[in-house]
Amino acid sequence: MDMQTTRPPSLGARHSSVERLLMPRSIAIVGASPTPGALGASVLANLERNGYAGDIHLINPKRDRIGHRPCLDAIQALPEGVDVAVLAIPQPAVLDAVRALAERRVGAVVIFSAGFGEAGETGLSQQREIARIAAQAGMLVEGPNCLGSINYRQRIPLTFIEVDIALEQASAARDRSAIGILSQSGAMMAVLNTTLASRDLPLSYAVSTGNEAASHLEDYVEFLLDDPGTQVITMIAEQFRQPQRLLALARRAGELGKRMVLLHPGKSGAARAAAATHTGAMAGDYAVMRTLVEHAGVVMAETLEELGDISEIVLRCPTPPTPGTAIVGESGAFKALCLDLAEDLGLDLPTVDDTNAPALRAALPPFVPVSNPLDLTAQGLVDPDLYTRTLAALFEDGRFGSIVVGLIQTDPVTCAIKLPPVLRAARELHPDKPVICAGLDEGAVLPAEYLAELRMLGMPYFPTSERALRALRRLTAQAARQATHRQAEPALTTLALPAGAGVIPEYRAKQLLGPAGIAFARGELVTTLEQAQAAAARLGGPVALKVQSEQLSHKSDVGGVVLGLEGADALAQGWQRLQANLAEHAAQVPIEGVLVEAMGARGMEMIVGARNDPQWGPVILVGFGGVTAEVLHDVRLLPPDLSVEAVMAELDQLKAAPLLHGYRGAPALDVTALATLVVRLGALLCGTPRIREIDLNPVVLYPQGHGVVALDALMLID
Amino acid sequence: MDMQTTRPPSLGARHSSVERLLMPRSIAIVGASPTPGALGASVLANLERNGYAGDIHLINPKRDRIGHRPCLDAIQALPEGVDVAVLAIPQPAVLDAVRALAERRVGAVVIFSAGFGEAGETGLSQQREIARIAAQAGMLVEGPNCLGSINYRQRIPLTFIEVDIALEQASAARDRSAIGILSQSGAMMAVLNTTLASRDLPLSYAVSTGNEAASHLEDYVEFLLDDPGTQVITMIAEQFRQPQRLLALARRAGELGKRMVLLHPGKSGAARAAAATHTGAMAGDYAVMRTLVEHAGVVMAETLEELGDISEIVLRCPTPPTPGTAIVGESGAFKALCLDLAEDLGLDLPTVDDTNAPALRAALPPFVPVSNPLDLTAQGLVDPDLYTRTLAALFEDGRFGSIVVGLIQTDPVTCAIKLPPVLRAARELHPDKPVICAGLDEGAVLPAEYLAELRMLGMPYFPTSERALRALRRLTAQAARQATHRQAEPALTTLALPAGAGVIPEYRAKQLLGPAGIAFARGELVTTLEQAQAAAARLGGPVALKVQSEQLSHKSDVGGVVLGLEGADALAQGWQRLQANLAEHAAQVPIEGVLVEAMGARGMEMIVGARNDPQWGPVILVGFGGVTAEVLHDVRLLPPDLSVEAVMAELDQLKAAPLLHGYRGAPALDVTALATLVVRLGALLCGTPRIREIDLNPVVLYPQGHGVVALDALMLID
Repeated sequence: MDMQTTRPPSLGARHSSVERLLMPRSIAIVGASPTPGALGASVLANLERNGYAGDIHLINPKRDRIGHRPCLDAIQALPEGVDVAVLAIPQPAVLDAVRALAERRVGAVVIFSAGFGEAGETGLSQQREIARIAAQAGMLVEGPNCLGSINYRQRIPLTFIEVDIALEQASAARDRSAIGILSQSGAMMAVLNTTLASRDLPLSYAVSTGNEAASHLEDYVEFLLDDPGTQVITMIAEQFRQPQRLLALARRAGELGKRMVLLHPGKSGAARAAAATHTGAMAGDYAVMRTLVEHAGVVMAETLEELGDISEIVLRCPTPPTPGTAIVGESGAFKALCLDLAEDLGLDLPTVDDTNAPALRAALPPFVPVSNPLDLTAQGLVDPDLYTRTLAALFEDGRFGSIVVGLIQTDPVTCAIKLPPVLRAARELHPDKPVICAGLDEGAVLPAEYLAELRMLGMPYFPTSERALRALRRLTAQAARQATHRQAEPALTTLALPAGAGVIPEYRAKQLLGPAGIAFARGELVTTLEQAQAAAARLGGPVALKVQSEQLSHKSDVGGVVLGLEGADALAQGWQRLQANLAEHAAQVPIEGVLVEAMGARGMEMIVGARNDPQWGPVILVGFGGVTAEVLHDVRLLPPDLSVEAVMAELDQLKAAPLLHGYRGAPALDVTALATLVVRLGALLCGTPRIREIDLNPVVLYPQGHGVVALDALMLID
Repeated sequence: MDMQTTRPPSLGARHSSVERLLMPRSIAIVGASPTPGALGASVLANLERNGYAGDIHLINPKRDRIGHRPCLDAIQALPEGVDVAVLAIPQPAVLDAVRALAERRVGAVVIFSAGFGEAGETGLSQQREIARIAAQAGMLVEGPNCLGSINYRQRIPLTFIEVDIALEQASAARDRSAIGILSQSGAMMAVLNTTLASRDLPLSYAVSTGNEAASHLEDYVEFLLDDPGTQVITMIAEQFRQPQRLLALARRAGELGKRMVLLHPGKSGAARAAAATHTGAMAGDYAVMRTLVEHAGVVMAETLEELGDISEIVLRCPTPPTPGTAIVGESGAFKALCLDLAEDLGLDLPTVDDTNAPALRAALPPFVPVSNPLDLTAQGLVDPDLYTRTLAALFEDGRFGSIVVGLIQTDPVTCAIKLPPVLRAARELHPDKPVICAGLDEGAVLPAEYLAELRMLGMPYFPTSERALRALRRLTAQAARQATHRQAEPALTTLALPAGAGVIPEYRAKQLLGPAGIAFARGELVTTLEQAQAAAARLGGPVALKVQSEQLSHKSDVGGVVLGLEGADALAQGWQRLQANLAEHAAQVPIEGVLVEAMGARGMEMIVGARNDPQWGPVILVGFGGVTAEVLHDVRLLPPDLSVEAVMAELDQLKAAPLLHGYRGAPALDVTALATLVVRLGALLCGTPRIREIDLNPVVLYPQGHGVVALDALMLID
C-alpha cells in the first residue's frame, strides 16, 4: 500500500501535526522490544500485522536488531523530522525522551504511560513541562495516559492493544462515510472500536487523548470535521479543555451536515467527584456543558448502549429523524408496551386513526384499525405484501419523522416471509426518514443475508425495540431543539457598568437593568423615615423596606427586609425594626440607604438567573420558585440567544408546566412576558461580558397581559 | 417416552383440568387437515415432530385418513373422556364444537380462533355461552384468541406455531429448576419462548390464555406453584380477572421460595386505552394493581428486556439480591457512567474506601483505590488473580447484596485471561449473592465455553452493563419492599356505620373517625348564629364555618365554607355570607347544620386518602398537597397493612421527601404521626369493608411532636 497516494489532498497545513500523527510516513518506536507482550513489541507487531509500508525506526540501546530490523541506540540517532514517535518506555524516562524528540524535530509523540497529571503534583509538573516543550517545538503530544490511535483507512495502528484491521474494513472506511472515534479514556476508545466495528460500521480514525497535555479532543474534532470521509464523530469525554472552541466546532459540524454524538459522564455528583480523581482535573459544570453542547447541535447519549445506537442511526440513515415516530408491530400487547415506554421517554408517537390516515387505511386489511403503534397482527404471515404497503404509506406520511418496525422473528422460515417485503419497501421507495428494524423476540437469529441487506439499504437493526425507542428519543429531542429558532441576529445589550468588581446593590442593579427592559416594582431610595413616609405615600398601598449595601448580598439574613407595611404607623414601626436589626447584625456595614418599594399582587413565583460561566460562557436559568419546586429542581438551563418562541417551548418542558397555562380554572399566565425577560437577560449577558451573574429572585408571573415583575436583583460583575 | 410415568405424582385432583390440558394422555384435533400451513396440520405436525406418544384423534368429516392416521367424521364419534381437544376450525363453528365436546366429556379445549370477547357484542355473548358450557361440564377452556400451550418437559406442544423441543432442552427442564411462561397475548408467549430459550434457560410450560373465557391466568399460576420443577413464573398480563386470588397466589409463591416476574402494560393512559380495545375489557387501575402486586412479592418489569433479564437472574442465582450493589470495572470512565446510571435508576451503590473495606484493600494493588464502582484498570491483564481476590473480598462483604462484573472482552485471547479467574471465584467460593457478568464492549464475542460455564455456575451474562443495572434496580427495590415490615397481625378497626349507602357528611364522618384515632380540628355543629358565636367563644381564636349536608360532598363549590373568622362581627358577617351563598347556589338542599371549627396554625399540606378498590381491595394514598405537588403527582400508593416504619420508608420515596426532614432550616416534621394516620386508615378500611372511600384533604403536618390534623373528611360507604 502506498501511504503517500492515499493521503487526502484536502488537508491543509493547519492540521499538519494531527495529520503527521494519524497518517505518518515514518514512525519511531522508543523502547522497541523483542519480548512478546512488551509495549514496544506490541506496537511493532501491530504495524507489521497491518502491513505498514512507511519507515520504522526502532530505538533500543541494548540491541542491534529486533528481527530483521536494525535498532538505534538513542533518540539522538534518529534522522530529523520523523512523523511520529511512540514512547513504549517507563514513566520516569518519558520527559527526557520528549526533550530529545523535540530536538530531532519529530512531528508527534504518543505517550502511553500513566503517572502524570492524574497522579499528583510531581506528575502534573512533568506534564506541564511536556506541554511547554511541545508548544515550543510545534510538536503534537497524544497523551500521556492514553491508548494511542488507529488509522483504519490506511491500517496504521499506533497502540499496544492488538489490532487487526481487515482489508475489507479498511476499504469500507475509504469508500463509504465513516465514524471517527474520540475518547479521553483509552479503555473506552477500545470499547467503542469493538462495539461499532461489530455492527459493521466503517471507522475512519480512533484517537484516545488521555490527559491531553499538549493536544486536546478539540484538535481531533477539527481534523475529523475537515476529513471528507468522516461523517459522524462519536465521542466519550469527561471534560472539555477548550469549551468555546468545542461549541464553535459543533456549530460548524452542523453547517457541514456532519453529526457529533457525545457520551459525557458527570450527570451525577458522584460521577463528577469520581472523574476528578480519575482524570486529575475538576470537571466543569455538567448541566451548563450539556445545555450549550446540545444547543450547538451535539447529540448526547447517556449510556454506552445509546452511544452506539445513536451513532449507527446517524451514520446509516441519510436523513436525520424529525419528531414524530411511527411504530409498526405485530401484537396488541407490544403496542401497549411501546405506548408505556414512549411516555416514560417523552418520545412523541403522533396519533393516527381510520379517518385521518387514508393511505394507511387503504394499505391495511379491514380488521386492522389504523393506529400508532400499529398492530398488524399475524396477518403479515399470510399477506407479506402488507409490510410493503404499510411502510409505503408511512414513508409518505409527513407526521412521521422516523419509523420503527418491530418484528417477531421466530426462526429463519419466518424471517424469510417477513424480511423481503420490508427490504423491498426500502429498496424501491427510498424513504427520506430513518427506518429501524427491531426484534421483539430478542435472541432469535436474524439470518445474516437479511442483516447485511438491511444495513446496505440504510436500515439499522437493533436486537430490541427498547433500544430503538431510546435512541430515537435522543435524536428527536435534538431535532426539536434544532428546529426552535435561535435569534437570527443575537441581541446584544451593552450596559455601562461602574468600575471595580463585586456585588452591585439591589437599587443600583435595578437602575441599570430597568432601562434594559427588566420590570421591577416601583421604588425609591431613602435615608430617613420622613423620606420613607413621603415615598410610601407616593407609591400607595403596602410597601417593603429593603436595606441597601454593597456588602449585604443576602440582606434577609440580617433582618434587612421588612414587608407589608401599610399606613404611617406601620411604616414607622417597620423602619425601627429594620434599624434595630441592622444595629444588631450588621453594625459595621456601610449602608447606602433603604429602598422603599410598592408591594404588588401575588402571582406565580418563578426563579430567573443568568451566569457567565468562566468556561462555557453565558447561560440562563429559569424555573419554578417556591420551596416545593426548589426541592424538585424544576428548572431549565438555556443558551443566551434563543428566540422568545424557543424559550416558551423550553418553559413547556418544565415538569410543572401545566401551572403556566391555566391549571384548574386559574387564568393562563403571561408566559410571553417571562420568555421576553429571559431573552433580555441573555442579551445583557452577551452584550456586557463583565456581568458575571444576575439573579432576579423571585420573579412574579401574572396572568396573560399582566407581565412579570422581578422582586429582587443581585448583580455580580468582574 | 411414557407419559404416565413422567407425570409428577404430587399434583392433586384440584388441578386435574389444567393437568389434563398440559399433560394429556389423549388429544383430539378438531379440523385436522393434510394441507401444510393449515392450523390443524400444524398442530399435528408439532405433535409428531416432538414424538408425542399418547393417543391422537383426528376429526375431519371430508376425509378417511390423514397420512397413516384415521379420521373421525364428527366430534360425536370421539371416545368419552379424551383429555384435550384442539379446535383448528373457523370462528363460526366453535360454539357448536364446544357443546359437542362437553357432551363427550373432554377434559379441556384449546380455542385458537379470535372473534369473541374482543370483537363486539355477538362475540362476547358467544364467549359467555362457552364459559357457561365449560362450567357446567367441568371442562377447561384455554382461549379463545390464544396461541395454545407447550409442555417442554414432555415435549407436548398444543399450538400451531412451529415448535421443535430439543431432547436436551426437555431433559434440562426435567432435571433443573425451570421457568413457566404465562401470557394472555399469544404473540408474547411466542416472544418469551424464543427469548428465554435463546438464553439457555430451561422452560417447564408456556401457556397463552387469550380471552380467558373459562380459565384464567390465576389457574395456571396455581398449577405452576404446585409444580415442583417450576421455580420462576414469567408473565405478561394486560389485566387480572381474579385480583384477590392473584395476590393470595403471589404470597404463597413467597412462602414456597418461588418467584413471579410480571410485565403488565398499562402504566400510561394511552396503553390502558389501547388494551381496552385490544382485549375487549377495561383494564383495572394500573397503579393500584402494581402497588398491591409488588407488595405481595411479584417483581415487576417495565420492558421486555427487563422481563427476560430479571427472569434469568432469579432463575440462575440461588440467593435473591438484597439492596446494595457492587460494580467491578476496568475503566475510570465506566465507573463514572455507572454512577450516573445508578443515580438515574435509584440503584444503591454502597460507598467503600481504603479505610472501611480492609479485605478489599488487601486484594488490590496499592495504586488501585478501594471504591464502588471499583476501577481495576487494565491490571487484571498482567495479574489475572486480581479478579479472584477482588471477588472473594466482595463475596464476604455484607454491604453488597449483588455484584456486577463489567469486563472489556476485546477478543478470545483477552477473554482467556479474564474469564478463568472470574469463574474460579464462583466455582470455589460459592457466593451467596447474585454475581452478574456484563460486557462493556457490546458486540465482542464471549467464547461459548465461558458463557456455558458462567451459566452453569449460576452467573447470568448480559451483553451490556446497563441491562444488569436496570434489572438489579427492580430486584433490589423489591427486596427492600419485602424487608419493610407488614404488621404481624393486621390491625382491623370496625366502625358502626349508619345504614344506607352514600356520602357521610363531614361532621358525622369526623365523629366516626375521631374515636378511631384520626385527629381533626376541634369543632361543634350549630344551626343558628347564636350557637355559632357561643361555639366560637368556646373554641377561641379564628374559626371556619362549613355547611353540612349529605348532598354536598363538595361544599366549597357552593360557597359553603367561610374561613378565618375572628371576633363577633366577623363571625356574623361570615354567617350571613354563608347563608346568602346557600340561598343562591343550594336553595333546595336539605342542610343538617353548620360546623364551627377552630383554625389551627399553618403547616405542610399533605393529602391522605383511602379506597376500597372493587377489584383489588383496600389501598391508601399519601403525598404532598398543594397545587405544585398535585401537578407533579408526588404521591405514594400503599397496601393497607404496612407497619408505621414501612409507611415512613415509603414517605421517604416521595420526590419532595427532603421537605419532611427539616429543609433549609425548617423544623423536621412529624412523619411518625403521619405514618400512624396512614396505618389507622388502613385498619379502618380492612376492618370495615363497607367503607368505599375516605378522603382527608388537606392533612396538615406539623413539626415533630406536634402531630397531624386532618382538615376535612369525606366518607363514602356502600
